Amino acid sequence: MQNFVFHNPTKIIFGKDTIPLIGSESAAFGTKALLVYGQDSIKKNGIYDQVVQSLQEAGMEIVEHPGVQSNPVLSHVQQGIDLAKEHQVEVIVAVGGGSVLDSSKAISAGALVEHNVWKFFIGKKSIKETLPLTCVLTLAASGSEMNSGMVVTNEETQQKFGFANKHLFPQASILDPTATFSVPPDYTAYGAVDAIVHVLEYYFTTEEPSVPVQDRFMEGLVINCMDSCDRVLQNLEDYNGRADLMWAATLALNGLTGAGLGKAGFPNHLIEHSLSALYNVAHGAGLSVVLPGWMQYQAAKDPAKFTQFAERVFGFTEGSDIQKANDSILCLKAWFDKVKSPTSLAAINVPESDIPQIAENAIGLAKIWRMQEYTAEKIEDILKLCV
Amino acid sequence: MQNFVFHNPTKIIFGKDTIPLIGSESAAFGTKALLVYGQDSIKKNGIYDQVVQSLQEAGMEIVEHPGVQSNPVLSHVQQGIDLAKEHQVEVIVAVGGGSVLDSSKAISAGALVEHNVWKFFIGKKSIKETLPLTCVLTLAASGSEMNSGMVVTNEETQQKFGFANKHLFPQASILDPTATFSVPPDYTAYGAVDAIVHVLEYYFTTEEPSVPVQDRFMEGLVINCMDSCDRVLQNLEDYNGRADLMWAATLALNGLTGAGLGKAGFPNHLIEHSLSALYNVAHGAGLSVVLPGWMQYQAAKDPAKFTQFAERVFGFTEGSDIQKANDSILCLKAWFDKVKSPTSLAAINVPESDIPQIAENAIGLAKIWRMQEYTAEKIEDILKLCV
Repeated sequence: MQNFVFHNPTKIIFGKDTIPLIGSESAAFGTKALLVYGQDSIKKNGIYDQVVQSLQEAGMEIVEHPGVQSNPVLSHVQQGIDLAKEHQVEVIVAVGGGSVLDSSKAISAGALVEHNVWKFFIGKKSIKETLPLTCVLTLAASGSEMNSGMVVTNEETQQKFGFANKHLFPQASILDPTATFSVPPDYTAYGAVDAIVHVLEYYFTTEEPSVPVQDRFMEGLVINCMDSCDRVLQNLEDYNGRADLMWAATLALNGLTGAGLGKAGFPNHLIEHSLSALYNVAHGAGLSVVLPGWMQYQAAKDPAKFTQFAERVFGFTEGSDIQKANDSILCLKAWFDKVKSPTSLAAINVPESDIPQIAENAIGLAKIWRMQEYTAEKIEDILKLCV
Repeated sequence: MQNFVFHNPTKIIFGKDTIPLIGSESAAFGTKALLVYGQDSIKKNGIYDQVVQSLQEAGMEIVEHPGVQSNPVLSHVQQGIDLAKEHQVEVIVAVGGGSVLDSSKAISAGALVEHNVWKFFIGKKSIKETLPLTCVLTLAASGSEMNSGMVVTNEETQQKFGFANKHLFPQASILDPTATFSVPPDYTAYGAVDAIVHVLEYYFTTEEPSVPVQDRFMEGLVINCMDSCDRVLQNLEDYNGRADLMWAATLALNGLTGAGLGKAGFPNHLIEHSLSALYNVAHGAGLSVVLPGWMQYQAAKDPAKFTQFAERVFGFTEGSDIQKANDSILCLKAWFDKVKSPTSLAAINVPESDIPQIAENAIGLAKIWRMQEYTAEKIEDILKLCV
């Protein structure tokens, strides 16, 4: 096991009827809030009204910043920063999924500096402080509600970049599974895919090939993401299914899975970020396109961990190691198909002839993430397995 | 899944050569430390010198409070409180295992009040604040290094009582697996038993019978506690074995296993605390006496979860549910025997005729813990299965 520091100070408030706690949790940090959210969905399902009422009852003044899109963009973040500065807000309240959270994190960092917030993303500046952030989560997917990462797309440069910093942990996140009842089947599945890939990026890519405690934890999470997603797709208002998926997705990327495993690569996210940046593909949909191809590429080079995965997650006990590994990739791909998350570039209308352009886009982030082994040639080879 | 709050602010610093960080981690809270430790073992293995050097280099003044015994006693805690008050220490530095940590937690709470610290244990007073606590862990067992619980024995009243309070989380805990290399085989095994029972108390007793995410997590921890303990007993200086055991024991009781499961009973701890209080049995040794009997008692009443345990932890696929459950209890007992942790009252020299007296002692804590269903009669029935 490698040395590690695990320090996750986010307070998770999980369960039914917990949204009215957002007022008291936020008021602990000040009286003026920037309320960040996406489109109209939280107005339709009543979450907006609950949040506003709770904040007002806690005596808070609210400045609104709606309109976050999935694959959130820098220009909208910048508008939020301007609002936060203009109104001197003391706390950011994010109501939404990963896009809203990540926008809010970027605003919380950008509001306290004079320079352009993008400098944090390209490594030219380092975050020293942020405004406190609270959240009501409405999508089980990104894990951003309990981690220190954020991802934003710069539309001008067509770069979807992300990084982590200890100041980016939310102070408190409210996870009410009923808030995800209205998430449609496709985005429910994309969320489960996102969480699964978060786990597998660590499972298959870390410096330390295996830490037994972490391996069992991650295998359990993958099984539970699939199982709970299946239950939810049978009945979108299955409370325990929604709860299991929400909690599994949070645990999938809160720092615990990778403890002791050393440096991890995020090759599937690396490549998917270019799909999102260039074609505005939903993140989970892009990941289910990339992952099976990447696994095939990787398993051929290093089948041992894939064999363990096949045995423990899919219960394969027969056949050679490489056969078990391949069968497990087919199983995962079949599950993506079953939940209708795309599994080929063709399915997201990306022509094979674009592969060099996607690879060219991806190596920009590979440099920032210091994944030197991911050359344009290697990325092209992987993408050819995703056709 | 039931509603829950998960908020664990302890910073874990894990790995080789991390002990010299205790100075900077502690100095963040003040310049005067109460250094709490047990017997001479940390002087023999060099940990004492490393800690003192690190604290001094960080500019700290040290007040020493050695002599914590396993099953730590209130009188010694009281001496520590007196020292802390007399010298106006600003931070408590615990160097040891669960007993040292729990004593330190009690001192950290008692140092800031005028009344007797035992009032916290019997529910007459509630903790409002504590001195900050840092720790260097030397035993994989209690989980106290990353949780908000503490257990202390009142020698006068022969009560071993424990409880949790959010102010009792350590600020930072340093977990260097090499610090456990000198733990002898018996205490290594007792530590693994303790961690396993921490997991199983939640696994088998909570209001919510099952949360799939938590179940897989807990099953993985039990498998890993046994497996890593086996490796360590083959070679006491197996770094990865020590690391896996240390990390699994920490995760076994840091609040994560029980998230969403509702109220848990701690029946094995309840009964074992009386064995420790009356006979000064090592905690893990007492638990391996009680657990198989308790499981037998419980499985007969509610075999479903025991069947899942048998299938997933021990791989039993054949036979009836009740047979699988019974076989898994036999397997666990056989593993306790293999690692030489006692599995009967006779093995710890407690005569069967003492059972009523033990039960009488245990119902005192049952009242405090609000486990009304554990009557003297029920406890006697369970203890008869432990003869």
